[in-house]
Amino acid sequence: MPRVVELAGGVGGAKLADGLLAELGADLTVVVNSGDDLVLHGLAIWPDHDTVAYTLAGLDDVDRGWGLANESWTVMERLAELGDETWFRLGDRDLATHLWRTDRLRDGARPTTVALELARILGIAATILPMTDDLVRTELRTDDGWLEFQEYFVHRHQAPEVREVRFAGADRAIASAEVVAALDAAELIVIAPSNPIVSVGPILAIGGIRDSLERARRRAVAVVAVSGIVAGRALKGPADRMLASLGHEQSALGVARLYAPFTDGFVLDRLDAELRPAVEALGLASLTTDTVMTDDESRARLAAEVVAFGRSLEAVRP
Amino acid sequence: MPRVVELAGGVGGAKLADGLLAELGADLTVVVNSGDDLVLHGLAIWPDHDTVAYTLAGLDDVDRGWGLANESWTVMERLAELGDETWFRLGDRDLATHLWRTDRLRDGARPTTVALELARILGIAATILPMTDDLVRTELRTDDGWLEFQEYFVHRHQAPEVREVRFAGADRAIASAEVVAALDAAELIVIAPSNPIVSVGPILAIGGIRDSLERARRRAVAVVAVSGIVAGRALKGPADRMLASLGHEQSALGVARLYAPFTDGFVLDRLDAELRPAVEALGLASLTTDTVMTDDESRARLAAEVVAFGRSLEAVRP
Repeated sequence: MPRVVELAGGVGGAKLADGLLAELGADLTVVVNSGDDLVLHGLAIWPDHDTVAYTLAGLDDVDRGWGLANESWTVMERLAELGDETWFRLGDRDLATHLWRTDRLRDGARPTTVALELARILGIAATILPMTDDLVRTELRTDDGWLEFQEYFVHRHQAPEVREVRFAGADRAIASAEVVAALDAAELIVIAPSNPIVSVGPILAIGGIRDSLERARRRAVAVVAVSGIVAGRALKGPADRMLASLGHEQSALGVARLYAPFTDGFVLDRLDAELRPAVEALGLASLTTDTVMTDDESRARLAAEVVAFGRSLEAVRP
Repeated sequence: MPRVVELAGGVGGAKLADGLLAELGADLTVVVNSGDDLVLHGLAIWPDHDTVAYTLAGLDDVDRGWGLANESWTVMERLAELGDETWFRLGDRDLATHLWRTDRLRDGARPTTVALELARILGIAATILPMTDDLVRTELRTDDGWLEFQEYFVHRHQAPEVREVRFAGADRAIASAEVVAALDAAELIVIAPSNPIVSVGPILAIGGIRDSLERARRRAVAVVAVSGIVAGRALKGPADRMLASLGHEQSALGVARLYAPFTDGFVLDRLDAELRPAVEALGLASLTTDTVMTDDESRARLAAEVVAFGRSLEAVRP
């Protein structure tokens, strides 16, 4: 199987990663956004990482869309009785992950090491890497002022319009040796159908990752992106409104424009087939297929199609 | 009701505090040992404080002897699956207390403020104060080397013999204004039937508290101690073995000798009636009664007897 690196945010990235895992097994590396990470109640919480890890371990709650299946909420209920903030809901079993991780980080382990350990404990064949071991925090200027990501995303239910996005610390953050090595060894790089602004954006804001993408492309390794916008709507989350409020086109074409400078191929949903000429006019190869992943089968099928598409692009490169 | 301050460790201190609460209501202040406190999984854990608080709130698990009643263990079970240390067991509902407290401390609240807030949330009429807002850590030199208190007490099940005890930070720690004010307003000071070395010892190691005791006695306020050793045995914990291995007599008389320099009265169990002359020879008034608190009634009865005994001592002072 080809060695594939996926750049991923939360749910959309996790679903495609799950399909890629079925196709690739240990040849898959997922580089996850850590700009949404937060410290809450003193605990290190990595929302995007854990969504990917729980999904690849088959432990995710499919209906809820986040956290662990068979979850209980005793701690949160008691925390509410004590009058503490509970807008960021943490299940009892999920809390164990955060307690374990906080311990490991306090022991001095790098975030990358901790992620590798957790994947091993959870029995995940693929590699999951935080985009960096350095602290990067996604912050959003909204009509309510500058907000931390989870304050906007969870606490305020993505209600305020987003006027500006910044990735605090990204300019000084270094891609980990593991991320650089994975990208340097990649035979295909896939950008997940995650929010292009706040999920993929932070990953691409790490200078070393952009450099690695450029090196890969010079090696004739294709970068292929999958649109998370279908028929002008985000499959999940506020990406559509965010594109619009930040002055981008609220469509898969708007996403393609963002990715065009460093991408070779773009995967559109059939519902957006009419955008294909405009996408190709950006210099991108395109694939039109069903991109909405509703079950394991559709995840695996889309993943296989994306890999085949990316490989075909390599074949035609000089 | 007289204003009473109890100096207390965990279980024994909590039981007597519960009896005193029934007798005194809001006129009771409990100053609790914080030398056993620890940070685990990034959380601020206060074992003695919480034993007292849960007991006074009527939330304690009487059979287990620590933690909350109606507790569940989902987080710990999952933490064990992840391979983390679980020797210090934290129930799900108990964890909420630690998460809440860690939040408040991270907000910059003083430990004393946090303790006062928790007592209000739990609906406790009495005041519970940490002995200091400063960091003091009880450490034990054992045959296994120097150990942190909970490492010795919980992890190693009090197995290694204790050769030396120190209260790291106590020499620089300051009694909080609240502790000093409570002692200065007290009409009686009661030393709980807690471990004299590692529960009461850290409290008395805070210079400001010793000074306050001396001031109280000059005001003719009695200091009365209740023996936690009955018939040569600790009712709970390793106090008996610890007295012996540190060169003290392993009996109520050994405890009385430790407290004699700053105590007026000493309460012995009926089983130790023969020690009464030796206790009085130390210059202490004595009371012999049933000191083993097996239910609410015996807690209240002992508390009432201790208060009456202490008040009678005041009456005869110059």
